[in-house]
Parts: sequence; structure tokens; C-alpha cells
Amino acid sequence: MAYTIYLSGEIHSDWREQIKNGIDEKGLDIEVLTPVTDHHSSDHVGVDILGSEENDFWKDHKAAKINALRTNTYIARSDLVIVRFGDKYRQWNAAFDAGLAIGMGIPVITLHSPELTHPLKEIDALALAVTETPQQVVEILDYISQD
Amino acid sequence: MAYTIYLSGEIHSDWREQIKNGIDEKGLDIEVLTPVTDHHSSDHVGVDILGSEENDFWKDHKAAKINALRTNTYIARSDLVIVRFGDKYRQWNAAFDAGLAIGMGIPVITLHSPELTHPLKEIDALALAVTETPQQVVEILDYISQD
Amino acid sequence: MAYTIYLSGEIHSDWREQIKNGIDEKGLDIEVLTPVTDHHSSDHVGVDILGSEENDFWKDHKAAKINALRTNTYIARSDLVIVRFGDKYRQWNAAFDAGLAIGMGIPVITLHSPELTHPLKEIDALALAVTETPQQVVEILDYISQD
Amino acid sequence: MAYTIYLSGEIHSDWREQIKNGIDEKGLDIEVLTPVTDHHSSDHVGVDILGSEENDFWKDHKAAKINALRTNTYIARSDLVIVRFGDKYRQWNAAFDAGLAIGMGIPVITLHSPELTHPLKEIDALALAVTETPQQVVEILDYISQD
Amino acid sequence: MAYTIYLSGEIHSDWREQIKNGIDEKGLDIEVLTPVTDHHSSDHVGVDILGSEENDFWKDHKAAKINALRTNTYIARSDLVIVRFGDKYRQWNAAFDAGLAIGMGIPVITLHSPELTHPLKEIDALALAVTETPQQVVEILDYISQD
Amino acid sequence: MAYTIYLSGEIHSDWREQIKNGIDEKGLDIEVLTPVTDHHSSDHVGVDILGSEENDFWKDHKAAKINALRTNTYIARSDLVIVRFGDKYRQWNAAFDAGLAIGMGIPVITLHSPELTHPLKEIDALALAVTETPQQVVEILDYISQD
Amino acid sequence: MAYTIYLSGEIHSDWREQIKNGIDEKGLDIEVLTPVTDHHSSDHVGVDILGSEENDFWKDHKAAKINALRTNTYIARSDLVIVRFGDKYRQWNAAFDAGLAIGMGIPVITLHSPELTHPLKEIDALALAVTETPQQVVEILDYISQD
Amino acid sequence: MAYTIYLSGEIHSDWREQIKNGIDEKGLDIEVLTPVTDHHSSDHVGVDILGSEENDFWKDHKAAKINALRTNTYIARSDLVIVRFGDKYRQWNAAFDAGLAIGMGIPVITLHSPELTHPLKEIDALALAVTETPQQVVEILDYISQD
Repeated sequence: MAYTIYLSGEIHSDWREQIKNGIDEKGLDIEVLTPVTDHHSSDHVGVDILGSEENDFWKDHKAAKINALRTNTYIARSDLVIVRFGDKYRQWNAAFDAGLAIGMGIPVITLHSPELTHPLKEIDALALAVTETPQQVVEILDYISQD
Repeated sequence: MAYTIYLSGEIHSDWREQIKNGIDEKGLDIEVLTPVTDHHSSDHVGVDILGSEENDFWKDHKAAKINALRTNTYIARSDLVIVRFGDKYRQWNAAFDAGLAIGMGIPVITLHSPELTHPLKEIDALALAVTETPQQVVEILDYISQD
Repeated sequence: MAYTIYLSGEIHSDWREQIKNGIDEKGLDIEVLTPVTDHHSSDHVGVDILGSEENDFWKDHKAAKINALRTNTYIARSDLVIVRFGDKYRQWNAAFDAGLAIGMGIPVITLHSPELTHPLKEIDALALAVTETPQQVVEILDYISQD
Repeated sequence: MAYTIYLSGEIHSDWREQIKNGIDEKGLDIEVLTPVTDHHSSDHVGVDILGSEENDFWKDHKAAKINALRTNTYIARSDLVIVRFGDKYRQWNAAFDAGLAIGMGIPVITLHSPELTHPLKEIDALALAVTETPQQVVEILDYISQD
Repeated sequence: MAYTIYLSGEIHSDWREQIKNGIDEKGLDIEVLTPVTDHHSSDHVGVDILGSEENDFWKDHKAAKINALRTNTYIARSDLVIVRFGDKYRQWNAAFDAGLAIGMGIPVITLHSPELTHPLKEIDALALAVTETPQQVVEILDYISQD
Repeated sequence: MAYTIYLSGEIHSDWREQIKNGIDEKGLDIEVLTPVTDHHSSDHVGVDILGSEENDFWKDHKAAKINALRTNTYIARSDLVIVRFGDKYRQWNAAFDAGLAIGMGIPVITLHSPELTHPLKEIDALALAVTETPQQVVEILDYISQD
Repeated sequence: MAYTIYLSGEIHSDWREQIKNGIDEKGLDIEVLTPVTDHHSSDHVGVDILGSEENDFWKDHKAAKINALRTNTYIARSDLVIVRFGDKYRQWNAAFDAGLAIGMGIPVITLHSPELTHPLKEIDALALAVTETPQQVVEILDYISQD
Repeated sequence: MAYTIYLSGEIHSDWREQIKNGIDEKGLDIEVLTPVTDHHSSDHVGVDILGSEENDFWKDHKAAKINALRTNTYIARSDLVIVRFGDKYRQWNAAFDAGLAIGMGIPVITLHSPELTHPLKEIDALALAVTETPQQVVEILDYISQD
């Protein structure tokens, strides 16, 4: 009865660890997938592996495509996708991941503070739960995992 | 040989009119679909039609779902989706629409200034064209519409 | 930009006519599909065309399958499905149609009185609008049809 | 050669236990998935985890969406869905689940008393077996599981 | 509200004409698709167009593939497929077409005499109507086409 | 690198055992799925489990649907489907299974004597191999299973 | 009963014109889609519209993606795809288009001289017709278009 | 978190072994699928198993279809497909496999020398990474496999 979940979005706080710890503490049978969350290697992987680019657009392009090999495969493989929006940065990739999941027919849980309610209304509208804390996500996972 | 396109994103500049005018001037056989771009009615349609809410979350929620009836239907019906990111606001719905389109297997063209290259790299990476001006979008539409 | 909609559910009130009249009055470009709403012929079509059955189960079975030829084809062809629950009868076919539509990825609007909120919560949860009157449905159709 | 089945519907009798016991007694290689069948927690999970609501509609809404995270994932993962209709309550969620399964292309077995034949004719018409007792369901599972 | 139907199977009686005439007489808005029903050209089209073969297997192979260009395209495009089994010949292609349609999610109506009930039980089981005469097919088409 | 295969068709010779034995002898990592091949129980399972029918049509109908619960699930789960046509009986269910597989996008291997080439040309045309002996099927499975 | 076809591959001979002329002469109801066949504009469209690149890889990249907006949309919209391989150049894009079509479930006709049989065997194996002249393609289109 | 990859294309150099060795050395949890890479048996498998053909076209045809049983099944099962183009031969099957993968929605990595950039631009344009050495492929696999 296990679930596979993907944790998308913000990489500057420890929300993923909180969810993983909560899953471990409750002993839930849940596989957790994530993007590469090391900011530096994620940004430079394109030129690091495939060779340098003079133009920053193509440097970003090559990196983002390699990351997509992991990200899109993992989203497609998940039963549900948790998307975290922090209070800083534009985080368009988080919104993009939410769209990818919905477009593929995979349910989404959003995780963000109430201040972001208005700009995130389109995404929250199609999510199956709108949470404010990692603990709430864990409680939902615990609830849907019960015998 | 006609195309159906959807124009997603920024509602505070006249980029949609520029693309529509360009299509008209060149006489292209292209059907243009758009979201409701009147900001006020788009934000209030939920409570205007379905009754008031004390909680802003549910007010936004009802509005966003009604807008999704149009938005998601139109995206699913399109041959390609143009997504515009302006320089202001968070515009998560634009990134979400880009994800929806890609998740459904519909090609995307992005439209934004070069300053946004880095935060938009994940979306640009999966787009089939990254443009900076509505005129470039029109030229692409003209090119792919030739006999 | 036209929509195709399917009107599922209750056949003992004039809600379909109210919606059709509203669409006509507003001049909306919307194709309206419906099940066969003549209760008697809908119940007897199996034996009327394919021959009598001693067992009522098979009489119902043959009728329901012929109706499914129309119903399921029309649902699959629709951009959105309106599902009406009246205050009487079990109306499991209305709930079944809502499930069919969601299972096929087609958005649903429900139409029912507030007294039915609790027993319909699973369906309302996945609907994109929960309405109480045919007029509200028409207003939504009008809103999403604007230029 | 194992099957995964989902047991949808009535939560006020022990039909799920009868089927599980029958599967155990016959030693069938069948994974059994179910919704959360604790009525109280199922109704309150939305406000229990995500915070209180003044309006009962939204209380139900939040609960139903969290339940859908489990229900719809499990239905999509199943080889066949057994849908039980009891003699009481409206049970629209059971009919909705049957529709979801058929809409996703997953076969359905219904389980109900003969008195419900007429109101359930649309669902029975698309089911691959119409049963009256949990024992019959077990016999079918036993039959299709033989070497 | 028009339907597109495909008439598969027996080519040695005038059942297709009877259905077409019935549709015309009733003025139904139904597009009728058929295979090439000229037996000789259907059998020889491969070698006639693409060059002779010494081995009859390849002669048949080339013909059958060209016919599949039409047949499979038309089945995929249809709202429902009528499959006729006559009393002579093996008619495996009719059964194959029925499987193709069901495999693609397109509903099937079978048309055959009651003597064939037992050998056709697997196909009849998944059909939405089992008819014995072209007139019954027309009556069903008339019924599902009513306003 | 294992394959899952389904063995459809003739139940009056030992071709399935020959293939299974060949797989065992060569030590191939292949899961073999089959229909219920006991002719008597397969024909009577409907009335045996679900109660008697006066009309043979419905007796067959109930049996065929229960068999479809197994058959269609197994076909959908297979990497390839082997369809055997014997020299006797109409075997429309074998042709139907071949159509189901192709309609679902699953490759087919046919197995029949050369005398049946002409009536089976439509099915052979879309098969990826046309074999005459179980030994040839085993050799193909061996070939595609090599490291 | 019209077909939509896409003509993929070689751009250095007049085979497309021959097929179009043949369709016109026979008065077939067939919509013909093609890539942009002007070699120079097809190669330079990326930099012409979107700005120059120092690196030829990115120049090609931008051009090929814009061409894919047309090519992939047209292939997805076609009932069948004709793929022409000439005797010169590598023509990997023709083979790629054939793969795209088959991967999307769209039937393919190949068109090439017999000398290319061996290197094209994988593509010919999944094509529904292997032709040597545009005239043969027209004859097939004529055959499958007959009443 | 394992991936399944398919290694398509050139069979005259040891690039597959280099990738497999790299995966082993880094201890990555990656299942590697390949075509049959023995040139002689791959070319002759059709006649070897199914009987001789006078015409080379049909000899190739039977072989290519048997190979497709493995190839297309493995591509469909993969998370990503690596396609290698060598400097010799036409290698249309490599381009065809790339198209198959993209048409099925499976991401592609290409592997070829920079001299092939121009003729491969259409395939590179839809690939998520364009590599020049097996080592780069391994580094990408290592990067996307990290915890």
C-alpha cells in the first residue's frame, strides 16, 4: 500500500528533512523522491559535464535539461507531488512542477504560508490539500497510509 | 493547416493585442485563445456568481476554479501555448500553465526579457522557443504557417 | 471558442430547459448534449428494440447499455459536464456520470441544493464549481465564454 | 499473477472483512486496498489536520479532498474495483468511485441486493459482474486466480 | 450531436445498405464509414499497387496492411463500431475489429443470428448491444440520436 | 529484463505446455499468463457463481464477463501476446484477443498452420511474428531474452 | 471520410508535388501537410528570428526547435505519415519522424528505392506500406479513399 | 530511486561496455537494456527461426519485426533512452528509436561527435542532453542518481 511522493520547490529551508523525519518517526511505507537540492551543482551541472558556454542562457539551458531528466522522471513516477513555496525568490520552477504534475494527472499538495494565498490561488485550486507546515503534510501522509 | 494557440500569463501589458494584430496583419489562419484578462472580474467571479465568503482563501479558491474551467480547457485544445512573464509580480499561474501544457504534451513558447533567463531556466529548457518580443512570436507563427 | 457541455442527472424538473434558455438568451456559442430524458422510453428501450426479457434485471441491463452508447459518447466529447442532483430518488447514475467524467479528465460542475452538501462532498471536492441554481450555471458559462 | 483490488462503498457492514477473510482462507495472492473506513475521522480529517472551518461546506470539502488523495490513487492502481451498495444512505461516493474506475478503464464488480437492481442499472450495465454476497466476490476472485 | 459509425465484418450480404438506407429514411445525422467491400480488389490491392509476390503469404500481407490503413484509421475515428458476423466463413477480421475497437475504448454493437451466441460470447459480453437485424441497429441509432 | 507474455486462443491442444516447457528448459526469465483453460468451468462459471439463467444467452454472458476480468487484465499487463488458432472451431475469442492487444498497443505473435494464412491475413499483417509451431515461439522468446 | 497526411523527408526532389498532383487529379478529399521545405530558411530560422549565435550548435538548435513546432504538431494531427528517403544525405530527420509517428500510434508509409531496403528494415518493418514511387503512394491513397 | 535506461544505436564500437562499466564503477542503481548487438544473428533471426525467404526484403522484414519485439518493449519500459550515432553507416534505426522514444514521451540523450551536429539537429533539439563521450553519459547518470 506504499506511496511514492516527490518533494518539489524551495531549497533554502529544511522542509524536506522535516517531512522525511516525520515519515521515519511514524514508520510510514513511503518512498521520497527529490530534485538535486545542491544549488551550486544544480546550476553548473550543464557546463561541468558537457563543456563551457560563453552565453549564460545556454549554460542555464544545459543544466536545466539535465535536471529535467531527473525531475520529470520522478514526478511521472510519483503518486503525489508536494510543492513548497518559500517566501523568497520567484520559484517558477515550483509552479512549473505543480503544472507538470496536474497535466500528467498526478495529485498535488501545496505547502506555503497564508501570505501567499492570493498569488498561488490557481495552483491551490487544483491541489488536493493546501498546507502551511511540513507537519501537516506528514499528518496527511500518516492519515492516508493507515490500514 | 490552421493552428490554435493559447496566450497565457501577464495581464498588465498589451502583448496579447500585439500578437493578435500581427496575426491579423499577416493574415495567418490562427485561432487565438486567452484567459479572462479583466483582473477585477477574474478575482471576484467566484463570490460574484456563487455567493460571498468570509475567508479570502475560499473567495480566491472559487474564483480560481471557475477560471480553470476556461483556462485548462483552452490549453488542452491548443496546438501551442505562448507563456508571457512580465517583470513584475510573481506570476506563478504563468509558470503553472507552462507546466500544464508540457504535462499534457503541448509545446510551449516563452516570452520574457533576458533578465529573467536564470529563474525561468527550467521552463525555457522545455520550451521550443524562447522569445523576447511579441513580434518574434508573430514571426514564428508566420514561419510555421507558410504553405 | 465554443464549448460543448453535457447535462447529466435529474430528469424530473426543468433545469435543462432553464440552462438552455439562459444560453440562448445570452447568445452563447455552446453546444448542449443531454441523455434521453423521456423516462419511459429510456427504461424500456432495451426490450422495445431488442426483444422482451422475463427477468427485470436483463430488461434494465439491455436498456442501460443502449443508453450508455449515447451517454458515454457524449460525456467523452464534452468540454465540461454539469451534474444535477435533485432532492428525490437515489440518482446513482448522476454520481456515476460525475465519476466517468472525472475519470476521463473532463471537468465537472455540480448543481444541487445545500442540503445535499454532506452526502455529495466527494463529488463536490473534485468539481470545479458547486452551484445551487441553473442561473448560476448559465452565469459561469457566460463568464468563461467572454471574448 | 497477483491482482490488486479496491473495495469501495458501504462502511456500515462487515463486507470488507468477509472478502478479506475469504481471500485469506483460500490463500489467494490478492492485495486488498480500501478507503479509510472510520466514519468519524474520515469526516473530520480536513479540519483536524488543516484547521477549523466555520462553514460546513468547506469542512467537508477539505476532508473529501484528503480522502481523494488515497481513494483515487488506490483506484488508479487497482486491477479491479469492487463497489458495494448497502440498503441505506445515498452512497453517492460509491457510484462516483464506480464511474471513476470505468472512466479510467478499470473493470468493476458491483455488490448489492436485488432490490437495488433498477436504480443501479447504469452501473451494473458497465460492470463485469453483479454480485449479491461477499462470498460470490470471493468465488470470482478464486476463479480468476487459478493456475 | 452527430455520430460517426464504422460498419465492420461480413461482405456477402446487403446489411450495410440496409443500415445506410434506414439512416437515410429516418434522416439521422450519422456519418457511415466502411472498409473496402469489394472482395477481389481488397484481396489483390497489395500486388496490384506494390508489385507481385510469389508467396501467397506476402501477397495477403501487403494487401491486409493497405486495408489496415483505412480500417484502423476509421475505427479510431468512430464513436461506435457495428460488427456483423454472417453464418459462413471464419470472419476472424470481424472479431479482430471488435477487439481493436474495445482495446481503443470505442463501444461496439454486434449483429448476428442467435445461433452464433455461444462462439461469440466473449465479444457480446463487452458489446453495448447485441442485435439480430440491421433494422434493430437502425432503431438504436435512431433512439440515441433523438433530441 | 524479464518479459510477461499471455497465451491466448486454442484450448484443445497442448501448445501452452510446449511453450512453458520450452521456457523452463531454456531457463528464460518469462512470466506466462493464460486464460482459464478448463472448458467446462469456463463456460459455466457465470451460473455456477452468480445463479442460474433460463436463457443461454445470459448464461454465456455472465460467464464471458467473469472470464474477461482475468483475460483483459492479463492482456493489458503483458509485454507481448501469443495468439494460437487451431484448425477447428470458430475461435472468435482468439481473434478478439489479438484485436484487444493491438488496440492497447501490445505486440502480437500469431501461431497457426499455413492453411489459415488467408483468413488470418488481417491479424498476421499487424503481428510482429507469424509462427507455425510452439518451438518457433520459444526460439523467438529465447532470442529476445539473450543478454 | 477525408484523410490528413503528412509528407516527411527528402527535400531535394519533387516527390511532394507528384503526390499533391496525383491527389488533385484523382480529386481525393485529402489534406496534405508538409514541413517547411525551403532548405535555407529552415536552417536559418532560429537566428533569423531569435538572434545570432556564435556557436553553430545553438544556431541549429534554435532552428530545429522552431521547425519542430510545425513538424510535430502536423504529425500528431495526421491520419498517416508518408516518409521519403532519398539516395543522398543522412536524412536522420526522416527516420526520426517515422519513429515519432509510430511512437504516437500513427501509421507510416515509407517511400524509397529498393537499394535502401537493408538499412531501412527496422522502419519498413513497422510501416503499413513500403513504396518505391510517388505514384504508388497516390494509388494507395486513392484505394483507401473509395466510397 | 533506480532508473531503467535503453542503449540504442551503433553496434560497432564498445560504447555500451564503457557505459556499463562506468555504472558499475560508480555503483549506480541503474538497469541497462540493450538491443541484440550481434550483427549476424540480428540480421538472420527471421529466416533462422521462421524459415527462408527468396526475397531479401522479406528476409529483412521478418528479422526486423522480431527485433522490434525486444526493442520497442524495452524502449517503452525505459526512463530514458541513450542514442548513439557513430561516424559510419546510415544508422536510420538509431534515429528511428529516438523518434519512438520521443513519440512515447520518454526522454532522450544523444551521443555523437560534433561533426554530426548539423544532420542530427532535429533529434538533438528534442533531446535533454547532447553528449560526445560515454563518460559524459555516465556522469549524467551519476548526477541524476545522487541522494
